[in-house]
Amino acid sequence: MISKLNLSINSERLLNRLLELGRTGLDDDNKRTRLAASDADKAGRDQLVTWMKDAGLEVEIDRIGNTFGIWYSTENRNEAPIMLGSHIDTVINAGMYDGCYGVLSGLEVINTLLETGFVPSRPIAVAAFTNEEGVRYQPDMMGSLVYAGGLSADEALAQVGTDGTILGEELKRIGYAGTKEPGFLKPHAYIELHIEQGPILDKKGISIGAVENLQGISWQRITIEGVANHAGTTPTDMRRDAGLAAARVITYLRDCANASNGQTVATVGTIEFKPNAVNVIPSLATFTVDLRDPNEQRLKKEEQSLASYLKELAASEEVSITSEQLVRFQPVTFDETIVKLIEQSAGGRGLGSRRMTSGAGHDAQMMARICPTAMIFVPSIDGISHNPKEYTKDADLAAGTNVLLDVVSNLAGNQ
Amino acid sequence: MISKLNLSINSERLLNRLLELGRTGLDDDNKRTRLAASDADKAGRDQLVTWMKDAGLEVEIDRIGNTFGIWYSTENRNEAPIMLGSHIDTVINAGMYDGCYGVLSGLEVINTLLETGFVPSRPIAVAAFTNEEGVRYQPDMMGSLVYAGGLSADEALAQVGTDGTILGEELKRIGYAGTKEPGFLKPHAYIELHIEQGPILDKKGISIGAVENLQGISWQRITIEGVANHAGTTPTDMRRDAGLAAARVITYLRDCANASNGQTVATVGTIEFKPNAVNVIPSLATFTVDLRDPNEQRLKKEEQSLASYLKELAASEEVSITSEQLVRFQPVTFDETIVKLIEQSAGGRGLGSRRMTSGAGHDAQMMARICPTAMIFVPSIDGISHNPKEYTKDADLAAGTNVLLDVVSNLAGNQ
Repeated sequence: MISKLNLSINSERLLNRLLELGRTGLDDDNKRTRLAASDADKAGRDQLVTWMKDAGLEVEIDRIGNTFGIWYSTENRNEAPIMLGSHIDTVINAGMYDGCYGVLSGLEVINTLLETGFVPSRPIAVAAFTNEEGVRYQPDMMGSLVYAGGLSADEALAQVGTDGTILGEELKRIGYAGTKEPGFLKPHAYIELHIEQGPILDKKGISIGAVENLQGISWQRITIEGVANHAGTTPTDMRRDAGLAAARVITYLRDCANASNGQTVATVGTIEFKPNAVNVIPSLATFTVDLRDPNEQRLKKEEQSLASYLKELAASEEVSITSEQLVRFQPVTFDETIVKLIEQSAGGRGLGSRRMTSGAGHDAQMMARICPTAMIFVPSIDGISHNPKEYTKDADLAAGTNVLLDVVSNLAGNQ
Repeated sequence: MISKLNLSINSERLLNRLLELGRTGLDDDNKRTRLAASDADKAGRDQLVTWMKDAGLEVEIDRIGNTFGIWYSTENRNEAPIMLGSHIDTVINAGMYDGCYGVLSGLEVINTLLETGFVPSRPIAVAAFTNEEGVRYQPDMMGSLVYAGGLSADEALAQVGTDGTILGEELKRIGYAGTKEPGFLKPHAYIELHIEQGPILDKKGISIGAVENLQGISWQRITIEGVANHAGTTPTDMRRDAGLAAARVITYLRDCANASNGQTVATVGTIEFKPNAVNVIPSLATFTVDLRDPNEQRLKKEEQSLASYLKELAASEEVSITSEQLVRFQPVTFDETIVKLIEQSAGGRGLGSRRMTSGAGHDAQMMARICPTAMIFVPSIDGISHNPKEYTKDADLAAGTNVLLDVVSNLAGNQ
């Protein structure tokens, strides 16, 4: 069971910092756009580092620009730290919660524990990972990926951005090309608090998501080749209609999602017909399939089912179908002990909670490669994110941070 | 019953003229592009008029540039003429048969009857209508539409082309702005011989299509509005997926076409999703529906069924759907007497024939407004048209023209 310290975070300080960071780096149109390693990102980082130093934390920057505030004591300096965090870079015209909430709530938990004279058995660190959003430089979740050893720092630093800049040079320019080797702190546990960026908690009126896993992702581009023919003179039974075949795949995927009892989600987000004329049967249909499932076996099965369906469809519609894998990530399973601590904390505080799957990617999925990891979600109103309308109620922000506080104080307690 | 004169056309002359006209007005890339009222169109018209004059026909041009070669005798000058014809303007990079075959076969029938001393009870005219293709100036089938009184000559002449030119000025420039009022000859009957531009005769190995009607056409643009959401974090049962709804419409339309036993054809030729991103559920899907049926009641019923389906779909998928009518033409029923003459001629010559519906638009559909009309189809290899690969075998070209000869000699005979 989780031990009760009856502590609570200072929600006013947390909310003020969220507002302050949210105002940092607004562009000329008053839009919040802090792309990785930009001037706006520097402004956000400088603000964060100031708060870390004000709290008395040791600030370390690694070679990929990941920024850490670490609370060491003389006694625990050699222990593996509890790491909290997320990112403070944003998409273009972003909201103020995505990422920032995870970093500032981590800092708030440390502030609270410091103020109450808590004696942690391990260091507690808060991390802001570089370029989680992947808007300016690819791939996304870059800083945590490099930190977890999934990509070399040198390769990441050499990435050329959408604006032709090189990440390594930009990090130097803004003063955040550190010297620590990524991975220099191997955490005892990593916990990331994040807004859900989906509608479930909001729609169901639940405060806390105990995130037990993160969906695997399979992206494919499917190309169907039929025969362009006259829409009037070609009898139905002589058609080889690439567009019709594409439509059949889209409805098939929804059938699969429905049959999975909410486990698999499937999305066709892009489509193109050629020649794309009102009175010509499409000779070519190209579209993408985004398949996600928190279970690798099931995700594989869905991929195989789709491949079989495409074969049958090619035969029945007399079209040829090719598919190309664009992206493939295995699902991530989070640490059961931490997930249970989250549930117990929520219960202890009288907050509703439910086990959840993360449908979006997060730094936590990279950190799970190197240490026990879990995430806490709080509601996103209408599920909106990556948008200035992104919103989470103050009470939910405080509740989530209190749960994080409980989990950290338990993991770093001296039971 | 059709009376037998045992005449045959001069297929060598017909084929040579098709080749000659097919070579006229090739562009710099050796592509056949004789857009209405262009220099290339003038070259084609000049060639045609030369052949008409060589045959001793009276050449008349009306105000919209429709060009007629008329065989009058002193005795029949006051009778309503049998009119044959089609058009000689082309699409961009066209084949050599579409339209030209109808005009040159008409001329060939007159040549043959003249040479054999046939004494027609009525004048026989061959017409080349202006701007059937509608590539440079809208609408298509313009010359015959004006001739049949469906559009005023002044309005048509004022049309601005895709190249900014005005049709009336261009017709003057090339010397084909005539003085006759469109409709100046009211035909006793109009018969148009044309390549099928579809696969049926070719696939079934039948030489002659006795075209009994022409499909009505209903074009709609349908817009489905859902909600853009994250492809990973949005559970299936909370989606309002405009793209999925569009796919359901496409498969529904195919079900309707299948249920019609080959009467209705339905095509979704264009589609667009917004925002069109791999990992975003489409908030908007826009696509066109091309519905065709030779029976007006059935076409109306299909339109109504689609409208009902869209209502149900809007409710079940929680999307909003609007549709806009882009084009609507009623089906055209051709003259049963002429259609029977076509069948009887084919039978008499030992040629296979079948009743058919025209799936494409033709000048005959406009002429049907003012006189008994029918069409004869010959096979198009693989149904290809509007393309340099458009091809009909010489034997089929000759057979179709012989059937036309029979029909004309019967309608203009002195029984």
